Amino acid sequence: MGLFKAEAEVYKPVEDVNLGPESDEFYRRANVKAPRLAGFVVKIFAWFLELPLIGTFLLYILKRDNLIYKLVSDAELEGSPVYVPMHPFDDLTEEKAMHIGSDLTPAQKVQQAIDCLPSHCGNIVDDKEPFFRRWTIMDYSRAYNSGVITPCMVAERLIAAIKESSSPTLDMAFFIDYNVEDILRQATESSLRYKRGEPISALDGVPIAIKDEIDCSPYPTTGGTKWLHKVRPCKDDACCVMRLRLCGAMLVGKTNMHELGAGTSGINPHYGASRNPYDVGKISGGSSSGSAAVVAAGLCPVALGVDGGGSVRMPAALCGVVGLKPTFSRVPHSGSVLLLSVSYFSCAVLFSFKYRRYLFSSFLINLDVLVSVLPLNWTVGMVGVLAATVEDAFITYAAISGQLQENETSSLPQPKVHFPLLNSGSTISNIKMARYGETVEVTIPDIESMRLAHYVTIGSECTASLSSYLEKLNIAEIGWDVRVALCVYSAFSSKDYIKAQKMRNRQIQIHKNIFSKADVIVTPTVGVTAYPIMDDALRTGELDYINGAALVRYQIAGNFLGLPAITVPVGYDRNGLPIGLQFIGRPWSEATLIHVAFAMQALGISEYRKPQVFYDLLKQ
Amino acid sequence: MGLFKAEAEVYKPVEDVNLGPESDEFYRRANVKAPRLAGFVVKIFAWFLELPLIGTFLLYILKRDNLIYKLVSDAELEGSPVYVPMHPFDDLTEEKAMHIGSDLTPAQKVQQAIDCLPSHCGNIVDDKEPFFRRWTIMDYSRAYNSGVITPCMVAERLIAAIKESSSPTLDMAFFIDYNVEDILRQATESSLRYKRGEPISALDGVPIAIKDEIDCSPYPTTGGTKWLHKVRPCKDDACCVMRLRLCGAMLVGKTNMHELGAGTSGINPHYGASRNPYDVGKISGGSSSGSAAVVAAGLCPVALGVDGGGSVRMPAALCGVVGLKPTFSRVPHSGSVLLLSVSYFSCAVLFSFKYRRYLFSSFLINLDVLVSVLPLNWTVGMVGVLAATVEDAFITYAAISGQLQENETSSLPQPKVHFPLLNSGSTISNIKMARYGETVEVTIPDIESMRLAHYVTIGSECTASLSSYLEKLNIAEIGWDVRVALCVYSAFSSKDYIKAQKMRNRQIQIHKNIFSKADVIVTPTVGVTAYPIMDDALRTGELDYINGAALVRYQIAGNFLGLPAITVPVGYDRNGLPIGLQFIGRPWSEATLIHVAFAMQALGISEYRKPQVFYDLLKQ
Repeated sequence: MGLFKAEAEVYKPVEDVNLGPESDEFYRRANVKAPRLAGFVVKIFAWFLELPLIGTFLLYILKRDNLIYKLVSDAELEGSPVYVPMHPFDDLTEEKAMHIGSDLTPAQKVQQAIDCLPSHCGNIVDDKEPFFRRWTIMDYSRAYNSGVITPCMVAERLIAAIKESSSPTLDMAFFIDYNVEDILRQATESSLRYKRGEPISALDGVPIAIKDEIDCSPYPTTGGTKWLHKVRPCKDDACCVMRLRLCGAMLVGKTNMHELGAGTSGINPHYGASRNPYDVGKISGGSSSGSAAVVAAGLCPVALGVDGGGSVRMPAALCGVVGLKPTFSRVPHSGSVLLLSVSYFSCAVLFSFKYRRYLFSSFLINLDVLVSVLPLNWTVGMVGVLAATVEDAFITYAAISGQLQENETSSLPQPKVHFPLLNSGSTISNIKMARYGETVEVTIPDIESMRLAHYVTIGSECTASLSSYLEKLNIAEIGWDVRVALCVYSAFSSKDYIKAQKMRNRQIQIHKNIFSKADVIVTPTVGVTAYPIMDDALRTGELDYINGAALVRYQIAGNFLGLPAITVPVGYDRNGLPIGLQFIGRPWSEATLIHVAFAMQALGISEYRKPQVFYDLLKQ
Repeated sequence: MGLFKAEAEVYKPVEDVNLGPESDEFYRRANVKAPRLAGFVVKIFAWFLELPLIGTFLLYILKRDNLIYKLVSDAELEGSPVYVPMHPFDDLTEEKAMHIGSDLTPAQKVQQAIDCLPSHCGNIVDDKEPFFRRWTIMDYSRAYNSGVITPCMVAERLIAAIKESSSPTLDMAFFIDYNVEDILRQATESSLRYKRGEPISALDGVPIAIKDEIDCSPYPTTGGTKWLHKVRPCKDDACCVMRLRLCGAMLVGKTNMHELGAGTSGINPHYGASRNPYDVGKISGGSSSGSAAVVAAGLCPVALGVDGGGSVRMPAALCGVVGLKPTFSRVPHSGSVLLLSVSYFSCAVLFSFKYRRYLFSSFLINLDVLVSVLPLNWTVGMVGVLAATVEDAFITYAAISGQLQENETSSLPQPKVHFPLLNSGSTISNIKMARYGETVEVTIPDIESMRLAHYVTIGSECTASLSSYLEKLNIAEIGWDVRVALCVYSAFSSKDYIKAQKMRNRQIQIHKNIFSKADVIVTPTVGVTAYPIMDDALRTGELDYINGAALVRYQIAGNFLGLPAITVPVGYDRNGLPIGLQFIGRPWSEATLIHVAFAMQALGISEYRKPQVFYDLLKQ
C-alpha cells in the first residue's frame, strides 16, 4: 500500500507555532474536484462502495485523496492522544457572572437566569417595537400571567400552525412527530396552574420542540431514520428534556433532522426536507434542521438540538436564530440523548481550504467545500439550544445545564455553572468587543488536519455506536447518502482514530495558547447562506461537498475540542437570507460567551426581517 | 462479510451481574488449537500475513477465530467508552497510611518511606539469617555508611559480574547496554559523598538497572529492537529515572527485553534470550525480562520495568522477585518513557478459558493458553518496580511516584501519594488476610472479553505510536514474531478499538462492585512457572500460545482498568522454579497493597532459595 501513500505531514511542536497574524503557517488551499451528487448517481456510488473488494479499494483511494493518510493517519506529531475533551477548571473565574448553586431545581435556575436579565426584556406591553421581532419566553410568561392568553389557546394555534405548515402546499417538514392529545394535555395542566396563580417557572406553558435525536416521551426517537426507533425503543425523557418538563414547558413534538445527523442540508428522504422559513425553496441547514426552522417560523421560542459538528449552530445561522452549544459535558448526556448530530461528509474530495479565524475582527463569508454526515458519538456531540434571542437561549441553558444531582457518577465532573449578569450596567464595557474593544488577529494552524481528525472521530464513533443496530437492519431502509457515509466510516482503522486523538490534543494546546491572548474567538458561523433544495435530492439525499464544506467550515473546534460556542444573527445577504456570527469561548465560559453574544445582539441587526413563513401564536 | 460472522455477544447490564461464587456467569473454556511456532514456520506465517489480499483475508479469519468480532467488535453492551483509566479520588482514605506532601523531593520521599519501615529491615549486622536472602537497599545504605564497602567497590564487582554473565559460557543476556565509564563515574561521585558524610538518600550508590524501554542517559533506547534508537534518539532521562538520579542511585545500564515488549518470553532475537537465574535453560519471562533477572541474580536490589500487559509482574513472578505496577498515571510518563511493554499475542487461537479470581483464597496454578506481543501504548502501560523485597519496591515507588512538580499540566491529575505504615504494630491485623482474615470468593464475568478488548487496545495503540517510525524502516530489521504481531495490530478497525473501550468501562464498573466487597483481589500472578528456552526460538523468536496465555492470564485488569497490583514470591514448584502471588487493589491504594504484600512476604516463604546464577556484591 506504500506505493499509494503521499508523504506524511510532520507537525511542529506546539511551542514553535506562531499564532500571530504574521505567522508563516501554511494555509492549505481548497482543491475540490467532486461534483454534487444526488438522485441515481448517489445510488451508483453507494453500490460501488458497498462491494467487497472494489469498495475497499475505492475507500482506500477516497481516504488517500482526502489526505486522511497524509494529514492524520501517517502524520508525525508529538504528545499523547486525548480522548475526551474534558478541561480542568480549578481556578475558573468569570467576570460579571454569578455562581449558581448546583442544588437548585431547574425552575429555580430559570428564575436566577431571569434575575440576571435587564428588566426591559420581553416587556410585551411597554416595548412595542416598530420592527419585526419574535415572541420570547418572557413574552409568553407575561401574556399567560396577565391572563390575556392561555397555554390552551397557544396550543390550539400551534397545532393549527403545524398542520398548515405540513400541508402539501407548504410542505415545510418541520416535525417528524407531534401528538395533539399530549400537547393539549400539557396545555390544560399549564393553564390550570396559571389559573391557580401557581406557574412553575417562566417556562410554564411555553412551547418547546425537541430534535428527534433526543428522547422525549411519548414519542419514538427516530434519529431521522425509518428504523432506529424499531430496534431502540425510547423509554424515557432525556435528562435535558426532563428538566424542561420540570419547569412546566409544553413539549410540542419531535423536529425533523438530517437522517442520523448525517448531513448539513436537512434534506431527509424519509420525512422531507425542512424548508427555510426565510425562503421555502432553500435548506434550513442540518442536522438540527427542524429545530432551527420552528424557532424561525415562530412556532416555539426555543427548541433543543444536538451539535456534533456544527449541527445546532449551522441551521441556527441559516434560519436567522440564536444557537448555543455548551462546553462538552455541561448538559448531562444521560437519560438517553442519542447524540447523533451532524458531522460533515468529506469522502471523495480533497479538502484543503484557506481558513482563518479572526479575534473580534472582520469576517470571511465565502464559499467552500464540504457535505455533512452522521454520527452517534461520545466525544464531540453536545445538546444545544436554538432560540429567537440570546436571552431565551440563556434561560433554556440555565434550565438544562449542570451536573446530575442524583446518581452523580454517571455524569462527568464539571465546574459550577455561572450565569452572566446581563443587567449589570453596560454589557459591553467589560468585554473587549468589536468596534469598542481591543481585537487581536490570530492564525490557527492545521485547521484542515483538525477537520479531518474530527471527521475520523465522529465517523468512527458513529459506526461503533450504531453497529449492533445496523447488524439487524435491512440496508434498503437507509437513505442513499447515509449509506455512502457508513461505508466511509467503516473504513477507518484504529490507528486512524488514535492519531486523530493526538491531533486533538495538539489543537487543545494551540487553542489554550490562543485563549491566553483573547477571551473569545469570533468567526462567521457558516461560510455560505442557505442554498436551494433541488428536486433530485428529495428522495435520495445529496452529496454536496462544496456547500457542505462552506457550512461546516468554522465550527469544528467547538466540537472537537469541547469548547462552548454561540451563533447570533447579524444581518441578511442580498437575497434576504440570514447571516450568523459565531463566538467560541474558553472551556466552561458560557457566561462570558452569552455576555458577548448579548452585546452583539444589541449592536447587530437594527431591523429584523420577518420570514416568509411565520406564525404569531400570541396574537391578541 | 456477514457470512463469516459469529453471532455477537449480548452483555448484561452491570447491575444484573451476579459477582458471588454461586454466579451463573458462563466461563468460556479454553479451546486452543494453535501449535507453538518458531524458526522457519514463523517466517512462513509472517510472509503470508504480510501479503496484500491473502493477508487481509487471513487476518479476518484470525480475528474471527479469536472471537474478536463476537466478543468485542460486534458485541452489544451498554455505557459509553472510557478511554483513559483515570479514577476519581475525592474521598480516598487509606487506613494505616501516611499522606505524603507533593512538594517533597524524591530523596525526602525515600526517607519518609524508610521511616515507615520496621526498624529491623536490612540490618546487615544484627540480622544474619541462616537462609539465603538478597541484599536490600538498606543493606547497601548501611554498608556504605559504615565504610566497610564503597560504591566504587560495588561498581567494580558489578562490572565484573555483568561481564561474566554476558560471557558465551553463561550467555544470560541480562543487559542490552551498559557503560563502564558512566558506572564508574557515578560510583566515584557517590563514594565521595559518603566520604564527606553527605549521602543524598538511602539510594545513594545503590545499583539500579533500567529496562531499555525507558529513556536513561547516556544510553540509546532500543526498545529491544535494532532500529528504534536510530529513528528516535534518546534525549534525556525519563522522569522516573531522573528522580532516581536525584536520589543518588547508580544507574548501571539498560536491561534486555522482549522486542518492542512484544512478548512474554523475553526471547529477543537481537540481544539474546534473558535466562532465568533459577534455571539458565528457562525463560525469565517478559517483557521486562532483564530487569527481573538482574534483581534475581543479585546484580541490583532494584530495577525499573514497564507493565502494559503484565510485563513487570510476569517476569518478577518467574524470577522469584517482587513486582509492583502502580495505579495508572501514578508515576509520570513524561520525559520519554517509551511505554512499550508486554501484551500477549492471541492471533490464530480461540482463547476461551475458565478464569476465576479468588479473594484471599486458594489459588489456581494451572497451564493455559496465550502468547505475548508488543505495544507502545498510552492507556495500559505503567512504569513499575522490580525488587528483591516488598520494602525495596516500596522505597523505589516512593522515589518515583507522584505528580510532576514543575509543568504540572503535562501530568494527569491524581490524589496525593500515601505510604503504608509498615512499622505500626501488626501489619496483618488491620488487613483481612489469608488465614487470618475474612475471605470472599468472587466471580468476575467476561474475563475472556476483557482480555480480547485489552489486546485490541494495546495493539492499536502500539501501531499508532510506532507508525511514523515503521514507515522509515526496513521490515527485515524486525524479528519474525513481532512482524506477525504488527500485521495483526494493523487489522484493527476504529470500531474494534472503540468497542474495546466500552468493554473497559463495563469492567471498571464490575471491579468497582467487587471492591465494595473486599480490599484486595488475590490471584496467582502467572498460570505457569518458567518454561524452557528452545534453540529454534533463539533467532526468530517464537509464537507459543499455550504458555503465553498461562503467563498473562491473571494480569489484565491491572493494565486495562489501571488498577495497582503487586506480585510477591511465595514458593517454588517441584523443579525449584519460583511461584508468585498477585494482589490487585483499588485505584490509588498502593499503600494498602504494599501493606498486604508485606504481610504476605512475612507469612510466605520460610526459606528463600539461592538461584543458580547469583552475585554477592556486598561480600566482605
